[in-house]
Amino acid sequence: MKMFASDNASGAHPEVMAALAAANTGHAHAYGYDEWTERAVAVLKEHLGKQAQAYFVFNGTGANVSALSALLRPYNAVVCSDVAHIGTDECGAPERFTGSKLIDLPTRDGKITAEQVQDALAGMGEEHHSQPKVVSITQATEYGTVYRPEEVRAIASTAHDNGLYVHMDGARLGNAAAFLGCTLREIVTDVGVDVLSLGGTKNGLVFGEAVVFLDPGLASEFLYVRKNAGQLASKMRFISAQFEALYGTGLWLRNAAHANRMARMLSDGLAEAPGVTITQPTEANEVFAILGEELAGPLRAVADFYPWNERTGEVRLVTSWDTTEDDVTEFVEAARSLARA
Amino acid sequence: MKMFASDNASGAHPEVMAALAAANTGHAHAYGYDEWTERAVAVLKEHLGKQAQAYFVFNGTGANVSALSALLRPYNAVVCSDVAHIGTDECGAPERFTGSKLIDLPTRDGKITAEQVQDALAGMGEEHHSQPKVVSITQATEYGTVYRPEEVRAIASTAHDNGLYVHMDGARLGNAAAFLGCTLREIVTDVGVDVLSLGGTKNGLVFGEAVVFLDPGLASEFLYVRKNAGQLASKMRFISAQFEALYGTGLWLRNAAHANRMARMLSDGLAEAPGVTITQPTEANEVFAILGEELAGPLRAVADFYPWNERTGEVRLVTSWDTTEDDVTEFVEAARSLARA
Amino acid sequence: MKMFASDNASGAHPEVMAALAAANTGHAHAYGYDEWTERAVAVLKEHLGKQAQAYFVFNGTGANVSALSALLRPYNAVVCSDVAHIGTDECGAPERFTGSKLIDLPTRDGKITAEQVQDALAGMGEEHHSQPKVVSITQATEYGTVYRPEEVRAIASTAHDNGLYVHMDGARLGNAAAFLGCTLREIVTDVGVDVLSLGGTKNGLVFGEAVVFLDPGLASEFLYVRKNAGQLASKMRFISAQFEALYGTGLWLRNAAHANRMARMLSDGLAEAPGVTITQPTEANEVFAILGEELAGPLRAVADFYPWNERTGEVRLVTSWDTTEDDVTEFVEAARSLARA
Amino acid sequence: MKMFASDNASGAHPEVMAALAAANTGHAHAYGYDEWTERAVAVLKEHLGKQAQAYFVFNGTGANVSALSALLRPYNAVVCSDVAHIGTDECGAPERFTGSKLIDLPTRDGKITAEQVQDALAGMGEEHHSQPKVVSITQATEYGTVYRPEEVRAIASTAHDNGLYVHMDGARLGNAAAFLGCTLREIVTDVGVDVLSLGGTKNGLVFGEAVVFLDPGLASEFLYVRKNAGQLASKMRFISAQFEALYGTGLWLRNAAHANRMARMLSDGLAEAPGVTITQPTEANEVFAILGEELAGPLRAVADFYPWNERTGEVRLVTSWDTTEDDVTEFVEAARSLARA
Repeated sequence: MKMFASDNASGAHPEVMAALAAANTGHAHAYGYDEWTERAVAVLKEHLGKQAQAYFVFNGTGANVSALSALLRPYNAVVCSDVAHIGTDECGAPERFTGSKLIDLPTRDGKITAEQVQDALAGMGEEHHSQPKVVSITQATEYGTVYRPEEVRAIASTAHDNGLYVHMDGARLGNAAAFLGCTLREIVTDVGVDVLSLGGTKNGLVFGEAVVFLDPGLASEFLYVRKNAGQLASKMRFISAQFEALYGTGLWLRNAAHANRMARMLSDGLAEAPGVTITQPTEANEVFAILGEELAGPLRAVADFYPWNERTGEVRLVTSWDTTEDDVTEFVEAARSLARA
Repeated sequence: MKMFASDNASGAHPEVMAALAAANTGHAHAYGYDEWTERAVAVLKEHLGKQAQAYFVFNGTGANVSALSALLRPYNAVVCSDVAHIGTDECGAPERFTGSKLIDLPTRDGKITAEQVQDALAGMGEEHHSQPKVVSITQATEYGTVYRPEEVRAIASTAHDNGLYVHMDGARLGNAAAFLGCTLREIVTDVGVDVLSLGGTKNGLVFGEAVVFLDPGLASEFLYVRKNAGQLASKMRFISAQFEALYGTGLWLRNAAHANRMARMLSDGLAEAPGVTITQPTEANEVFAILGEELAGPLRAVADFYPWNERTGEVRLVTSWDTTEDDVTEFVEAARSLARA
Repeated sequence: MKMFASDNASGAHPEVMAALAAANTGHAHAYGYDEWTERAVAVLKEHLGKQAQAYFVFNGTGANVSALSALLRPYNAVVCSDVAHIGTDECGAPERFTGSKLIDLPTRDGKITAEQVQDALAGMGEEHHSQPKVVSITQATEYGTVYRPEEVRAIASTAHDNGLYVHMDGARLGNAAAFLGCTLREIVTDVGVDVLSLGGTKNGLVFGEAVVFLDPGLASEFLYVRKNAGQLASKMRFISAQFEALYGTGLWLRNAAHANRMARMLSDGLAEAPGVTITQPTEANEVFAILGEELAGPLRAVADFYPWNERTGEVRLVTSWDTTEDDVTEFVEAARSLARA
Repeated sequence: MKMFASDNASGAHPEVMAALAAANTGHAHAYGYDEWTERAVAVLKEHLGKQAQAYFVFNGTGANVSALSALLRPYNAVVCSDVAHIGTDECGAPERFTGSKLIDLPTRDGKITAEQVQDALAGMGEEHHSQPKVVSITQATEYGTVYRPEEVRAIASTAHDNGLYVHMDGARLGNAAAFLGCTLREIVTDVGVDVLSLGGTKNGLVFGEAVVFLDPGLASEFLYVRKNAGQLASKMRFISAQFEALYGTGLWLRNAAHANRMARMLSDGLAEAPGVTITQPTEANEVFAILGEELAGPLRAVADFYPWNERTGEVRLVTSWDTTEDDVTEFVEAARSLARA
């Protein structure tokens, strides 16, 4: 049975699985000193610029906390949105790894603004307050919305003017690029991001994420940061080979664009069901909707999904590279049928 | 080209790779709430006892630091050997994750004794000193030697008598079991180990290790520890399926016994080469030898390996599930030929 | 010149200084194994109950972070108000010492409610979210307001029902007791507080605070926590002697009641000045007011104070044990005179 | 009764207490923005050089951990002796605050050598190993021995050549200076120390230590480090005034030289007692001796002291600014009398 629970409910794309299996050949030096890693690192330079330094890690929390650890001291703070994955879904790992405070800014759609960032810097220079050092934004956001390039540039400008770095949690970066019709470089490097958590797992990998430093000076000690954070894979080739399969071809974009299209179709379909309210613009691969409990219960039997806000009845539906039009149609028809009943 | 650099230089065993690929079917709930994980957890109960609680993580450092984090507060200390992987090869991750001190005891062969543990507890009860709370032993050790069951039982007895827990770093536990001709239960559960880091990667997995609590009371909050440590895999089924392939059949033992036999053959062969000194008993899948620089250089061209002690010229040679008799023979003959020259 | 900048701008009360000097006699065992400490601990038992276990530390941040460290693991969270000292004025020390997240609840007057606490527990039991383990409240609050005993009892009841502990930051506890006309026991022990940071410095000490466990089971390893947190004074007698002088007599209440009375007088006086708005109920020793910039500037030359909210022009005025009626009168008259000008 | 238990068993020197009491006058800005702190900082510049940046903290552990925190990331290591106070007597606070590993080098007399430091750097540049970043030496050492200036210079040279900083734990720095007949500058600034923990408490203060950066570039964010470490005193003037009394006059040297002389007298006296072995050169204010249990027990009734090595019967006797010749004579005569019995 398919689900709309998470893009993590999907398995791996067949091309990715094939690349992983193909890397299982003979001996290779461990810890990334292998040819697959060399190639995958080069692939990411092609996407993000020659200066981009990529390091592979196991998972999204690992990418975020090791990236942040490279930038922060315990008296620092991270400015982020109130629904940022680092603040709400990583069981406090960012605070634990960095010792730093997360300053969460309220948002309606998961997107913070340059003005909010500026306001959050009021305590800078006073020893009683955690000192903001990183702005972390999620692209696409936890609400399935997408920052426009100029919005990121404005945030980065404010950050840099005040001595802060910009971290982008790009667990769903491909979905943002697909929505915007931009290259990765245009929405990362060119708009001032300093460090990127680049997603793999949610876009069709078995496992694996990357930390990419656009400012290579920040990467100088990252080998130690990664190992010290428990995120150094011994048989690294098996992550690298997957990244090569995903980003060395157009697969990352195909997968993301497909998932986005399925979300759009799902959103449009549900919007027409009586009593259903779509609560966020459906820009990436997530649909947020208030279904009402009489729909939510029976629909979960059609395809599982998670509540987002128990109080309002808002739910989150996530599509993936392997969601089919039939999956969507079946769900939408069930919703409409239930709504009419 | 084959290497003796590390068991991490090997790829994955074909049966493991097949199981991983077979798990790539449809949707499954993320984070371990899937049928593969359920089965793999059950498999480990069969090995280690009904009370055993297994949790899968990404890598060996992740297993060790999350296991230790479950047991330690920052004012505690871990008693271990001076060559313990946690103390020498994890870039300080244990100190970073736990805040605790590692008290390293000198050993000749990687094995600490109950007497040494007792002596290390002198500062208990005084607030000026880190308070020992865990004894961590490695089985098989970093020197390829193997604790006898009664040695572990003696250490565990001393530990428990003093209110300490016993952690076993079992990255190469299979090799120890193969050498001893014991079940896993006989060398873990039955001799007083409280928490086990159970190896997978070095014994033929793509990636994946387990933390197994033999004392299930210690596991009560481990779901949070694992997530907070950045060690929770979203597509968990891909670790669990590998574990099921390895430990749900005899594969773990076949792989380990084979690697041990290759090490034995390599050790015996090298011992007969003039000028070569075997420096540790070859009990598991590692051979330690002083080769002399005139042999070491040319032999590295035959099959790569790492220096262990630059000063004495001691090197470490590691065999694996995929080392062949031909690999060993070729290397030994090259050594003998070079030694005679 | 007197200030209304902070109660920390005051020196020590003469009786406290005399006690400190009197303790400077001969040799005494270090680290609290001395007669002054024994007596001071006993004094606090008289106030807070026989089971109360008191430990002296250097400062307020030290008290808070060591108290919280005793209760928290890195995957836990602390529920507190959005103006809590631990969240806003300790430069991230709580996150750094505990690794835990602070969940800050919005308040109008610095006081959180049992209902807010209940709502903040929604993520309990899910491994993706930091697990709340402590509710921390400040008495008197950072806004100079005071929790009524039944308000604390309601919070404690909600906390305990959900397996959380209650920490009270009592840097100005005396001011709360003076306002309420209650004993310390009535507003701490009897209403469900588990651990108290008991203030000394702001109420007339040279330096020194206490961590008091009302639930003595929580204190079992606190000697190590305190040392490990860098908060163990070697010449402890010099803190203990001050605590004995403050709490072994009625001095704590005299000082606090006086400071409260001065704040009340200041608040009443300013309220009558045209254009001045008192923004919080003046219950303890702090007055919050919107002065307007034409008053604030010149008044700072009369007696210094700090802005609280740069945007609204709100300022904070703090009275102390050594504030005199003349200090207040001079300031109020200057304010009225400026306001009329 | 006087003790030889620790220099912390002494109270404060009368001149120090007088200065502390004299600082209790009116209001002063908190947190070090006061005239006493300004003067005390200037006094330390006179001792250690114009570039020296001093920050006052509460205690020795606080000085060490905040100094180290300014220099270290969690993947770093500190090279120190196996009896270093940071490694043995701070309950793991250095590991807890910094996350870093302590690499302890064996010594006979508490003094490490430049050669040992060099050997400890073997793992630099490899991501599997904690990366040494600080060499920490104690002056005078925990064994009451004193590094000669050229010994420190050699260590500093090795450290700096390898990109490491030099931290000096100078809890008893005055005793070292008194023994060497050197200025503080000659044994700190001029020999390459980068950061100094400068003792106060053990040399006659009520409480208070300083962290002094000789390389002011390292101090740029120390205000935050100190606050974040819980070591910022609100009524700072009371520490600063003591430092001014101690270091703004010759008191620091008088106190230290006196304590040294008392130790010398004690050492010489005990050495003549039959069966007593002095085990370390008595250079500062500590005497290490093997007394034998028949002496140790009864002598403790004369003046208390602590065992150092339970196995060998070695004990530690510490003299202080307030130890008198009579104290020493009484103890020595008791020892001789017991030894003859």
